[in-house]
Amino acid sequence: MKKFINKPENYVDEMIKGILYAHPNKLKCVNNDLKCLTRAYEVREGKVGIATGGGSGHLPLFLGYVGEGLIDGASVGNVFASPSAAQMYEVTKEIDEGRGVLYLYGNYTGDIMNFDMAAEMADMDGIRVTSVVGNDDVASSKKGEENKRRGIAGLVFAYKTAGAYAEEGADLDEVTRIAQKTVDNTRTMGVALSPCVIPEIGKNTFSIGEDEMEIGMGIHGEHGINRGKLLEADEVVNVMMEHIFNDYEYKREDEVVVLINGLGSTPLDELYIVYRRVYEILQEKGIKIHRKYIGEFATSMEMAGMSISLLKLDEELKRLIDAPCASPFFMQK
Amino acid sequence: MKKFINKPENYVDEMIKGILYAHPNKLKCVNNDLKCLTRAYEVREGKVGIATGGGSGHLPLFLGYVGEGLIDGASVGNVFASPSAAQMYEVTKEIDEGRGVLYLYGNYTGDIMNFDMAAEMADMDGIRVTSVVGNDDVASSKKGEENKRRGIAGLVFAYKTAGAYAEEGADLDEVTRIAQKTVDNTRTMGVALSPCVIPEIGKNTFSIGEDEMEIGMGIHGEHGINRGKLLEADEVVNVMMEHIFNDYEYKREDEVVVLINGLGSTPLDELYIVYRRVYEILQEKGIKIHRKYIGEFATSMEMAGMSISLLKLDEELKRLIDAPCASPFFMQK
Repeated sequence: MKKFINKPENYVDEMIKGILYAHPNKLKCVNNDLKCLTRAYEVREGKVGIATGGGSGHLPLFLGYVGEGLIDGASVGNVFASPSAAQMYEVTKEIDEGRGVLYLYGNYTGDIMNFDMAAEMADMDGIRVTSVVGNDDVASSKKGEENKRRGIAGLVFAYKTAGAYAEEGADLDEVTRIAQKTVDNTRTMGVALSPCVIPEIGKNTFSIGEDEMEIGMGIHGEHGINRGKLLEADEVVNVMMEHIFNDYEYKREDEVVVLINGLGSTPLDELYIVYRRVYEILQEKGIKIHRKYIGEFATSMEMAGMSISLLKLDEELKRLIDAPCASPFFMQK
Repeated sequence: MKKFINKPENYVDEMIKGILYAHPNKLKCVNNDLKCLTRAYEVREGKVGIATGGGSGHLPLFLGYVGEGLIDGASVGNVFASPSAAQMYEVTKEIDEGRGVLYLYGNYTGDIMNFDMAAEMADMDGIRVTSVVGNDDVASSKKGEENKRRGIAGLVFAYKTAGAYAEEGADLDEVTRIAQKTVDNTRTMGVALSPCVIPEIGKNTFSIGEDEMEIGMGIHGEHGINRGKLLEADEVVNVMMEHIFNDYEYKREDEVVVLINGLGSTPLDELYIVYRRVYEILQEKGIKIHRKYIGEFATSMEMAGMSISLLKLDEELKRLIDAPCASPFFMQK
């Protein structure tokens, strides 16, 4: 295990301490719990709150999207482990401005159970909570069973649109509607080349041959749909895009946002080689790229791999995607 | 070699094509040469131009710093190889607005030779050129022999300050003075944990044991000052900071910019663990962190490792560091 760490059991706390040292005007922790994080600045009175949460090891996911025009709080667990319901509840109380809180997070059993419990606790306090669960990973379940799919990098689109809408002053039902529409309009396919190491375990999360890749693997190393020889970049992209096109209807003249997400150790160079091919394919199909994000948005520590996400836009999603936002990890003018 | 690439010989061109597809309003190539890149937008009449250049494989270095409030053009070579003098000259002609061009690049033999030749070619065209060479890497030569030191991530500070000053309307001599002062006030120490693979070669750039690190290694795998057992993160940072403090005078109340730069595959989590320790050390010494940058600014593809850079500020450097800037890879409000 080659990492810059001290005691593995302190990995998450020390990482968050570093983040709080670096961004004290943007992020703070609640009740001295380093794993309960909220915005450190004031927002307009009555703004709908948005909370997320999930395991550590995915930076900038989850806490990295707490920021202006984005979300308001995040509870984070140990590496790849859900935070507790109590932590989610603390974040909820802190960010509620009287108009309710949307829970917006990925489709994982532990997170769902804990967010549902936190919602009940908030309800007893008179805080109205709604939930939208990201399930963009096309590879994780077949068409028609979208509710069984994992949430991966595409969740970032929903932070962006729901966050911008809350910033505009929309009420909880409206913010929830936009988050759900964004999730419904998002499709992601991933591919993994190498595993990562959870600090407290100290071993690779999975093994994979020196010349192999796994298409559709999840960001915790969940099984994908095909393990095979590593292909050339363009062939990999062709296969991934075909899965996305088979899953969702895109027509000529449609406008999309493209997210090319590196899982950790894949260089930016390669993400642009991938984007190049995605661009060509969309050009051929007459689909317009309205905006693109290329970089690391949802990682798995030092895993090598990447994912391609498409968000199909309509006029209101386009306006919300284009709105400015600013977190220490994600800024748009 | 586990990479998302097509033919290795097309690696750089395909990467740059992806970048140009993604950012057509920001970057363009000159004379249809994908390796001669300049800003694609207009600047104020008479703005001093700033050009850089160097090998590929270091994204966002070099072309990623072409942007508003930053630099105007970059010529890039193959992976770890200098661009040609002719390419540098093409960039120079394209970005000159009649008030001259500063060459601002890292201290590597091939780059120096080619930039000097390009300056002569520009001179024959009546374009005045000055040069400032980044040499921030403390590990690469002893104190008193700073001119023998390699330029690494600290060069980004000089893009930022010189770029902001040119944007303000400063003349070539003044922009050159600020670039040189920034270089003079910058110190960097790096550490490497693993090699990378140059696509056209297909083999690791160096070998290093499973439990080893090399302090002071360069971003092309140049020898450092100590290879030894991988220490805990805080110990690694202590050693690196000691080298920096031994090399440059910092006093209580001094203000610095801190740059924690990941070399490629080191997760953001670890960079924040490192920042945490750097913050504590500077706190103990009474040195104030005016601004910090934490992420990937000068990489070596998928190399694992990181560097710590400090820029000592005075009032004018502070103003220039704080100015807004915007490239597709580096934005500051």
